Amino acid sequence: MKTIGIGLVGSGFMGRCHANAYSSVAGIFDVPLKPVLKMLADANLEMAEAAAQSLQFENFTSDWQKLVDHPEVELVDITAPNHLHAPIALAAIAKGKPVYCEKPLACTLAEAKAMRDAATSAGVATLVGYNYLQNPMIQTAREIVQSGEIGELLSFRGVHAEDFMADAQAPYTTRLDAGQGGGALYDIGSHIISLARFLVGPISEVMGMQRTVYPERPEAAKHSKISGSKRMKTVKVDDQTHFLARFENGCCGTLEANWLAWGRKMNLAFELNGSKGTLVFTQEHFNELRLYQANQQPGRDGFKILEAGPNHGTYAKFCPAPGHQLGFNELKIIEVFQILHALGASGKSWPDFHEAYEIQKILVAVNNSAKESRWCSLDEIDSPSP
Amino acid sequence: MKTIGIGLVGSGFMGRCHANAYSSVAGIFDVPLKPVLKMLADANLEMAEAAAQSLQFENFTSDWQKLVDHPEVELVDITAPNHLHAPIALAAIAKGKPVYCEKPLACTLAEAKAMRDAATSAGVATLVGYNYLQNPMIQTAREIVQSGEIGELLSFRGVHAEDFMADAQAPYTTRLDAGQGGGALYDIGSHIISLARFLVGPISEVMGMQRTVYPERPEAAKHSKISGSKRMKTVKVDDQTHFLARFENGCCGTLEANWLAWGRKMNLAFELNGSKGTLVFTQEHFNELRLYQANQQPGRDGFKILEAGPNHGTYAKFCPAPGHQLGFNELKIIEVFQILHALGASGKSWPDFHEAYEIQKILVAVNNSAKESRWCSLDEIDSPSP
Amino acid sequence: MKTIGIGLVGSGFMGRCHANAYSSVAGIFDVPLKPVLKMLADANLEMAEAAAQSLQFENFTSDWQKLVDHPEVELVDITAPNHLHAPIALAAIAKGKPVYCEKPLACTLAEAKAMRDAATSAGVATLVGYNYLQNPMIQTAREIVQSGEIGELLSFRGVHAEDFMADAQAPYTTRLDAGQGGGALYDIGSHIISLARFLVGPISEVMGMQRTVYPERPEAAKHSKISGSKRMKTVKVDDQTHFLARFENGCCGTLEANWLAWGRKMNLAFELNGSKGTLVFTQEHFNELRLYQANQQPGRDGFKILEAGPNHGTYAKFCPAPGHQLGFNELKIIEVFQILHALGASGKSWPDFHEAYEIQKILVAVNNSAKESRWCSLDEIDSPSP
Amino acid sequence: MKTIGIGLVGSGFMGRCHANAYSSVAGIFDVPLKPVLKMLADANLEMAEAAAQSLQFENFTSDWQKLVDHPEVELVDITAPNHLHAPIALAAIAKGKPVYCEKPLACTLAEAKAMRDAATSAGVATLVGYNYLQNPMIQTAREIVQSGEIGELLSFRGVHAEDFMADAQAPYTTRLDAGQGGGALYDIGSHIISLARFLVGPISEVMGMQRTVYPERPEAAKHSKISGSKRMKTVKVDDQTHFLARFENGCCGTLEANWLAWGRKMNLAFELNGSKGTLVFTQEHFNELRLYQANQQPGRDGFKILEAGPNHGTYAKFCPAPGHQLGFNELKIIEVFQILHALGASGKSWPDFHEAYEIQKILVAVNNSAKESRWCSLDEIDSPSP
Repeated sequence: MKTIGIGLVGSGFMGRCHANAYSSVAGIFDVPLKPVLKMLADANLEMAEAAAQSLQFENFTSDWQKLVDHPEVELVDITAPNHLHAPIALAAIAKGKPVYCEKPLACTLAEAKAMRDAATSAGVATLVGYNYLQNPMIQTAREIVQSGEIGELLSFRGVHAEDFMADAQAPYTTRLDAGQGGGALYDIGSHIISLARFLVGPISEVMGMQRTVYPERPEAAKHSKISGSKRMKTVKVDDQTHFLARFENGCCGTLEANWLAWGRKMNLAFELNGSKGTLVFTQEHFNELRLYQANQQPGRDGFKILEAGPNHGTYAKFCPAPGHQLGFNELKIIEVFQILHALGASGKSWPDFHEAYEIQKILVAVNNSAKESRWCSLDEIDSPSP
Repeated sequence: MKTIGIGLVGSGFMGRCHANAYSSVAGIFDVPLKPVLKMLADANLEMAEAAAQSLQFENFTSDWQKLVDHPEVELVDITAPNHLHAPIALAAIAKGKPVYCEKPLACTLAEAKAMRDAATSAGVATLVGYNYLQNPMIQTAREIVQSGEIGELLSFRGVHAEDFMADAQAPYTTRLDAGQGGGALYDIGSHIISLARFLVGPISEVMGMQRTVYPERPEAAKHSKISGSKRMKTVKVDDQTHFLARFENGCCGTLEANWLAWGRKMNLAFELNGSKGTLVFTQEHFNELRLYQANQQPGRDGFKILEAGPNHGTYAKFCPAPGHQLGFNELKIIEVFQILHALGASGKSWPDFHEAYEIQKILVAVNNSAKESRWCSLDEIDSPSP
Repeated sequence: MKTIGIGLVGSGFMGRCHANAYSSVAGIFDVPLKPVLKMLADANLEMAEAAAQSLQFENFTSDWQKLVDHPEVELVDITAPNHLHAPIALAAIAKGKPVYCEKPLACTLAEAKAMRDAATSAGVATLVGYNYLQNPMIQTAREIVQSGEIGELLSFRGVHAEDFMADAQAPYTTRLDAGQGGGALYDIGSHIISLARFLVGPISEVMGMQRTVYPERPEAAKHSKISGSKRMKTVKVDDQTHFLARFENGCCGTLEANWLAWGRKMNLAFELNGSKGTLVFTQEHFNELRLYQANQQPGRDGFKILEAGPNHGTYAKFCPAPGHQLGFNELKIIEVFQILHALGASGKSWPDFHEAYEIQKILVAVNNSAKESRWCSLDEIDSPSP
Repeated sequence: MKTIGIGLVGSGFMGRCHANAYSSVAGIFDVPLKPVLKMLADANLEMAEAAAQSLQFENFTSDWQKLVDHPEVELVDITAPNHLHAPIALAAIAKGKPVYCEKPLACTLAEAKAMRDAATSAGVATLVGYNYLQNPMIQTAREIVQSGEIGELLSFRGVHAEDFMADAQAPYTTRLDAGQGGGALYDIGSHIISLARFLVGPISEVMGMQRTVYPERPEAAKHSKISGSKRMKTVKVDDQTHFLARFENGCCGTLEANWLAWGRKMNLAFELNGSKGTLVFTQEHFNELRLYQANQQPGRDGFKILEAGPNHGTYAKFCPAPGHQLGFNELKIIEVFQILHALGASGKSWPDFHEAYEIQKILVAVNNSAKESRWCSLDEIDSPSP
């Protein structure tokens, strides 16, 4: 089988998750290319070496440029902090190499645009890690929408709520760094926006409201000595964002990004009402999808609970029997298959840098709208030419 | 026992519901006044007579003024169409009689203000039929909020969605009449607004978005003959309203009123996140309340499902054992008890015309805001002096 | 309207519940007879007087025989302790009066048989308070079964679990008195048995297992003084019963009665699998019924959640709109309507003493089977001629 | 890192699942031995070759004895049909090689005993694929039970219900072959029995009831030509088994195995009531566990929904954040880690052949008991010496 050399930048939560997906994908899918873990880059040599060993990469480096340049690295996979997405991706594209990058695409719209344009010019395949879209039940939801089973789309209520920053004493991290595109909207809101676009379509205008509930957070203690007297660091990004959205097809909705929602561990959820039916979903039970179809027999009508099975998306690749359930990591395996399939066969992957740029425009529009207390059209949003 | 003569205007869904509540209340609660069903008024004499007989009223009339004037009618209960709320209530207040009125209070803010002011001047007790607030689990939710159990309030996501107008061919009714304060926002949105105020407190500003999805509806066929060629009637009110809200205490939220939500029969629902916990509720399971408390034992933390029982609100009056569940009609019995208790003992009932006027201001603010595509402060909203 | 004089024996939880149902029934249903609360009997005159006043009965007595004999008492309603069911019912039947009696029918099978036979001979209508059967969703379940929608019945898993005796220190009550037919099986197991018969049909044989987990319980303190030194009383009845059942139609199942199930407030629940579909129900959400139909479209198949509405049983009498939900007390209103309807119109009520006797036979069979560690056929069970 | 050569027999659903687990385990866990996929055996050379290629094994064979004998095969993994478990396992043990075998252990108790005894004599590590026990939430349930958090165990209601044989026309497979230990009880009932033992402890006696609902099934069509005229094959095994169980610690319960339960895709479920609390679980939401603790604050008591997170079992190895959820295949990865950990470090794996033999005894006892319509003590069950 033909192989493809993988260069992975970053070895945190997502880095490990990607690495494991490469190891597993060929057992699940009929891949056109077999991934070979060529090189891992991390912040310093020690980390890189340890990660390379644990994740079974052939080489390691503390200089991502070397990884990009390495002749056997044929796919550059970026799970580094957000501010590094643009420089690494641009360097890779400059070498004509395809890029698989974690979300959000970039810290600023200008960066995102440059990345999109460079990818287009170079004609390289790209993929961005909005992994929840790869869920067979979300693929089924899209199929239901596209086939007209629930009719014209009328109302969308979406939310991504978690509680990992709900404790006022949760320490400052780079997720809180405005310069890195931080905040609840960028970090988790981008997921529900990606879902809204995937299912409902393009958004035409937004009206946002944002709040920084905890304007300072304790610095993460680097040395145990000073942990007693915590130093506080100012937070400028949103802890919660709510916004109204109008879609191009007329559908209206509310969206919310919230990392202060006590008790919510992974409430990426939506309800989508159409003129002929309704879909309800939450990532809390992501192997299910609820469907209500208009015009059922009276007295026997109700929401149906669809359970993931071989008739849904790529589920059958994982298991021949219904109801066994996929896990979060397996959504990443599907994602990795998408990029391999694009590179080895179809040439198309999704969501690519184009799509991620459109999502990024919405993030900017919501921020602008909230700041200026007015509706913001997506037409207004475009980066100045780089 | 002292009695109180009831005059009921209207005998539709709500009229019957009120009448039954008067029959039942004394068996459930220790009422200070025993209601006596004195007189029923309806649109014409035939309807009034039939309803009086079926609901066991002593007298009937087709002229609500006679009911108001009747010396033995000591409480005027209004379940007539919205545009009659104001004239009947004002007439009753003019006679010094207390008023129990269905929601929304009035068709216009000017009417609502006049009703509120008249009641204040006359010093009569009033109650408005926001019955979902009377639910023991909602009373418990408020208790949890007021006691600080979930801390400072941060985010509220509220919705009232049903599907009774979801069929594009559902016929035109007075609920669709703009002159009568119709539309999804007034009709059902007022419920979730009443709940938001009850739990979170006053709203300071709103930003609305509204849509009339079906701009015409078939006229209700009066004669079977012409049912083949339906005549269409123009609809000007909203089928769905979404809005952002800022509360005076800083809490931020989204609210939605939607009567096109296929499959939703009674989805009056909210999630309320505080700095120390979360409450989740839906009227679809209204004998339950979900509570997450911060700082639970690691590995043993989770949302708790509280089931209604004798420790919650007035539940014990209905049943000594937990988990047996109240029905919708029983919320109305609690409501009727509120007004009897006010009249015979405490002097205080809630939500009264003051509260209903505050809710009405929000309805107006949302409409204005949607029309003008801008944030609307509640401070702006006030009726011109009548 | 014709009236019927009600004589009620007992004014505890169930007595109050019945009295309230009489007050409410005429507002909900088109009753052929209007109930008039004639006389209430209780253990002593003080209790009887207080209850009569609170529940609005015309007369009261401490001697139930007087109530039975009273010429204006036309229906004898028994909510007295179990050991009084037989003598009161037999006395009423001797007077040719219909009887509405709480469950279980009697303490012993001989009593139950005598009651059934007397009612048959006298030709009086009877009704027994297995109120959960009156639920519109249970009526719908039966309709689904009877119409063949789920095909041949194959497996039934039923349970009635609560936690009101789960605390080892919960005091001794008459529910624990073997002489009064006490124990979890008689007290709550009779409900799930009534449901099994209603939905699946006659049981042919059973195999039981029983356990008295707490063989003694503290006596209920009568005087606060001695509460410090609790006296213990021996318990002989079952705290939990599990049994296998074979139905006449071949369906097989397990049933459980358990009052030690911490956290369960009203878990009367079943799953019924047929050759063409499945029904799932729990009284914890008793306004819902889950239905799975075989041969749904692949990829769109799932359990449907039916929500109670006007298309289900008598729901429409309570509310014209779906999803508003009935409460426990309203199941009793439906039950009261059944007996009024039988007396004033149809002549038929259900479940009557015949049915209740069949249920009682199963209770005996399960007890025998558990005691003797063997399958017990229902054919074996018959009372000696009285 | 030290490696271990894997020899896998079988490449069906479970074979693929095991192979993928070997590929993934080292990325998730700190394994003491790195698995190397040495050899795959299957029914014929073509199948073996294709599977070896797709699952990335170095060698292949159609003769499992060669696999067992191969010097580089250091762990024999058996996912072959049930009747091959014993000969392969015994051959492997004879070579002193550890065995990882799918459930149920064997077709007959004699075989199972021989396997257990051989493993003991040879001192080799063994593991049997009762993978649902490896679920972090089941590990948490056991922790809760063992720590006494829910007190003394009183009642267990367990079920494993699916619908893969619910269609009367579902074709005959080896799962229906009595000679291979087929039937719902062996095939899926063994899972709920393994769970009952894991959580509650040893069972002392059982009372079973079994039914073959469909006594013949169409033969699987081998050639499309004859599909019109299906030939039927007689079925002798149970389609559904219900049984009562007494545990050694006094706990009582009902268990059910049922592959005719329309709508149930993976309903491996239980409720376990203790003297201080209750646990409720279903594999339908296997990343959750419901816990009710006695003595909660009145009015704030309820079942808690625990969501899988880093505080539960081995979850943290898969994901640092809670609520992301594991999939079915990941339970197999945990299982594979167990055997690697046993071989490379602890020497102990669980459930081993000893445990699987105990489970097998219960299968036999239930069958005997059902056949003879009597309680069957586990003491009675022992295989004749081989």
